[in-house]
Amino acid sequence: MVTGKNYIGFDLKAKGNITYRTFNPLLNIQNETIFVEAAPEEVHEAVTLATAAFDRFSELSGNQRADFLNAIADEILALDDDLIQMYCSETGLPEGRAKGERGRTVGQLRSFAELLNEGSWVEATIDTGIVDRVPVPKPDLRKMMVPLGPVVVFGSSNFPFAYSTAGGDTAAALAAGCPVIVKSHPMHAGTSEMVAAAIIKAAKRTEMPKGVFSNLNSSGIEVGVHLVKHPQVKAVGFTGSIKGGRALFDLAAQRQEPIPVFAEMGSINPVVALPSALLHQGDDWAKQYAGSITLGAGQFCTNPGLILGVKSTSLDSFIQTLGAEIEKLEPNCMLHPNIFDNYERGKSELARQGGVTVAANYEAKVPANFAKQKVLTVNGSNFLKNPTLHKEVFGPFSIVVRCTDVNELISILNQLEGQLTGTILASAEEIKSNSELVAALRGRVGRIIFNGVPTGVEVCAAMQHGGPYPASTDSRFTAVGVHSIKRWVRPVSYQNWPDAVLPAALKNGNPLKILRLVNNEHTKAPV
Amino acid sequence: MVTGKNYIGFDLKAKGNITYRTFNPLLNIQNETIFVEAAPEEVHEAVTLATAAFDRFSELSGNQRADFLNAIADEILALDDDLIQMYCSETGLPEGRAKGERGRTVGQLRSFAELLNEGSWVEATIDTGIVDRVPVPKPDLRKMMVPLGPVVVFGSSNFPFAYSTAGGDTAAALAAGCPVIVKSHPMHAGTSEMVAAAIIKAAKRTEMPKGVFSNLNSSGIEVGVHLVKHPQVKAVGFTGSIKGGRALFDLAAQRQEPIPVFAEMGSINPVVALPSALLHQGDDWAKQYAGSITLGAGQFCTNPGLILGVKSTSLDSFIQTLGAEIEKLEPNCMLHPNIFDNYERGKSELARQGGVTVAANYEAKVPANFAKQKVLTVNGSNFLKNPTLHKEVFGPFSIVVRCTDVNELISILNQLEGQLTGTILASAEEIKSNSELVAALRGRVGRIIFNGVPTGVEVCAAMQHGGPYPASTDSRFTAVGVHSIKRWVRPVSYQNWPDAVLPAALKNGNPLKILRLVNNEHTKAPV
Repeated sequence: MVTGKNYIGFDLKAKGNITYRTFNPLLNIQNETIFVEAAPEEVHEAVTLATAAFDRFSELSGNQRADFLNAIADEILALDDDLIQMYCSETGLPEGRAKGERGRTVGQLRSFAELLNEGSWVEATIDTGIVDRVPVPKPDLRKMMVPLGPVVVFGSSNFPFAYSTAGGDTAAALAAGCPVIVKSHPMHAGTSEMVAAAIIKAAKRTEMPKGVFSNLNSSGIEVGVHLVKHPQVKAVGFTGSIKGGRALFDLAAQRQEPIPVFAEMGSINPVVALPSALLHQGDDWAKQYAGSITLGAGQFCTNPGLILGVKSTSLDSFIQTLGAEIEKLEPNCMLHPNIFDNYERGKSELARQGGVTVAANYEAKVPANFAKQKVLTVNGSNFLKNPTLHKEVFGPFSIVVRCTDVNELISILNQLEGQLTGTILASAEEIKSNSELVAALRGRVGRIIFNGVPTGVEVCAAMQHGGPYPASTDSRFTAVGVHSIKRWVRPVSYQNWPDAVLPAALKNGNPLKILRLVNNEHTKAPV
Repeated sequence: MVTGKNYIGFDLKAKGNITYRTFNPLLNIQNETIFVEAAPEEVHEAVTLATAAFDRFSELSGNQRADFLNAIADEILALDDDLIQMYCSETGLPEGRAKGERGRTVGQLRSFAELLNEGSWVEATIDTGIVDRVPVPKPDLRKMMVPLGPVVVFGSSNFPFAYSTAGGDTAAALAAGCPVIVKSHPMHAGTSEMVAAAIIKAAKRTEMPKGVFSNLNSSGIEVGVHLVKHPQVKAVGFTGSIKGGRALFDLAAQRQEPIPVFAEMGSINPVVALPSALLHQGDDWAKQYAGSITLGAGQFCTNPGLILGVKSTSLDSFIQTLGAEIEKLEPNCMLHPNIFDNYERGKSELARQGGVTVAANYEAKVPANFAKQKVLTVNGSNFLKNPTLHKEVFGPFSIVVRCTDVNELISILNQLEGQLTGTILASAEEIKSNSELVAALRGRVGRIIFNGVPTGVEVCAAMQHGGPYPASTDSRFTAVGVHSIKRWVRPVSYQNWPDAVLPAALKNGNPLKILRLVNNEHTKAPV
């Protein structure tokens, strides 16, 4: 079922001479299929096909693109258990997770289809002309969003479905009208090929142009570099490490024609535990955070890697309970030996820093590639002066900082790099009386959570997933939810254009029945 | 009235030792006031003050910021003729233009005030929670736009009012809640200081925090470089040359924390004249284009620098009439001897290229710094193979390309760099039957005009001013109209936040009565 080849448009090809295999971390063995990395000529062909497809694909109606997205969802579901087994064999993740993530991926595709069918997302804006205005006539101007062009999506290691081949970036770009070229993640090339096959099947069934989607295998950086530097590529989506995302951002910025790169990168997701939350519900929060830190072996970008509290007996008690609870949990298998090695290295590096003590460390023997959870503590002044302690350790790890007082805690927030999320555990009274702290936290993050855990990213319009650098390379956009489509579009104004040749979204009669801004009023009425 | 000093927050300071004077191009003499370039410590102080001001300024209500913007407009008008005289003495532009541009600037400020008073611009998006959802509860999520932080605005040479000190970038950033530091354009430092004084007066009157605005003099690149590299600066707005804009973009991309730069740069604004437009209205278009090319001595970013037609007797006749009409017009004074020199150099460089012939050249003697208009012609194949001919010549200049056929014309469009505008002169029939040409043109531009001239940028919500690189550094945003506020804001989500501490825009009761997206429905109703 899996060939190891690349989808260049609708065709399977394998002209390259670099090969690799994926790894089953649970069994600690290589999987059998041999994947062939895309050759430079295949990369170029995929981009050329995408460029050719762009003209027709971008002119299709929203309903037609919605049908394509729904067909992708259907074809993914039709792969059924074969796909789930492939996913599990390349990730070490359990079946339940695979099915949950598949559901999320299918849900994302369908939510973009709904967005397209409704149609108002193009932000149609109309200012009608005034022919007899003095000293000069006012022109008729009508603006709407149009797609940027071919988009490259880099598959992520930790979301083989939801942030890879047919994941959020791809769904948003296809919805926008941009052909997509996926650089599949080497850790789950088989999963990517199967999902790519589903996309191609859906594309043929709904009569999409050849080149609307390609899936390229790659084991190193060459394919990605070639793609990002290709003059016909117009935007890039990436989910992964700061190092990887920044390298792509730099490449894109250095092009003769710079292009936007939306990279959702690392985050330690600070959690502020204010005194009364710990005093009244400390044990409860400790249990919840033991679960949140270890969820999915801690391999989530919203994993709570930093907990900030003010020195007190209730903070001591929280740390003790957190340690006890987290040590009770069974370790889980990580995605790959490389990720496991990085986790071990990161954990040790932080544990070696001055003033750091161990609050919890899972000691029992575990199978290969299983992540032993660890929690460290350190006081505020040591944390403040040591940037190494601010680094993300990708895995079931967190560090609790004992601050002298709320002012020290605010100083730490102000010194943190940008984050995806920030959480405050507090009473209703405390949150009101700590506005400076709330403002400091909000200034560093994309999403601010009250009395909860940061893991669990709801897919909905009001979700912001992205934040000040390095949480993402452009905090003005989100990677999750339908508004993520805005990354791949730009506005175009039509001036004094005849109604007959205007796009449907801008015609006088409003045939799409969408919400438009007409002469500064939001309305669905015709002009 | 003008001191030559910098506004560092509310205070006039001049600690630097680099001085310069502005130039009156009409009289061809230096103006008297000595301006003192901001010293590095003053640059740093301005950014520090802006950062301190950000906390309070960003938390003000929309109405409060609207009052500030309206007060700026009032204070600018209160400067009355003194300001107009200063503008004219530093630009060589006529009083009528000065007054028109002042009206536009004041109008921009007031339109952002209206946007703030109405309030829906924050794109409030609410997804209410479902506590009993299985397997996990759905959280309550509420998203809105918040300001990025201190913004640096570079004054432009050609819009001393509308795209400088209190111009579109500044108005949009202040409206968003971002303090602004202006690097004033050295050619009109006196105009900038006067407008800055008006802004400071308005800030004090409406009780804005000190540091909400600073105005820095600069004669070279040092002040701008220092500003763009300053870690507390969070975004940059620029209007000017490709060389200047790209340099700032590169600096910003190389920072440890990259920041967005919106640079609106050069454009040659291609005009496609299809056969029947020239056949039936060739003389009329020739007259209109003679006016558009020479408007304001051609010193507009929307100046039509390239006219594409298909070889025919009506194209020949159009070129002849255009040449005759443009030679009848009186040359105008350019902004500065440097701009005049660049114009002369650019004109000569293009005239020297292979296959180029002169269609019109104003020959009579003119005063110093007056721009003699020129029109060249070349055939399509010469134009296609020579990128020098694609370069912008800033001034009353245009080049008419005689294409063999529409296919060659489309090839040229596909090879052009990104443009602010593209225009099609055609009959209603022609526009319908040339969809490939229309698509090619739309793909290269931000605004597409039917049967008109590209000069004249209407300030309204439906205007897109910006386009694919190098028209601007990020085609996803506009520099003109109220939507330009989106450059300076980012979304933040509040998860499970208590209603009492939510921002007004997100509270259940919708106290601001704004349009919100609530559970995927646009509504002004309370939750």
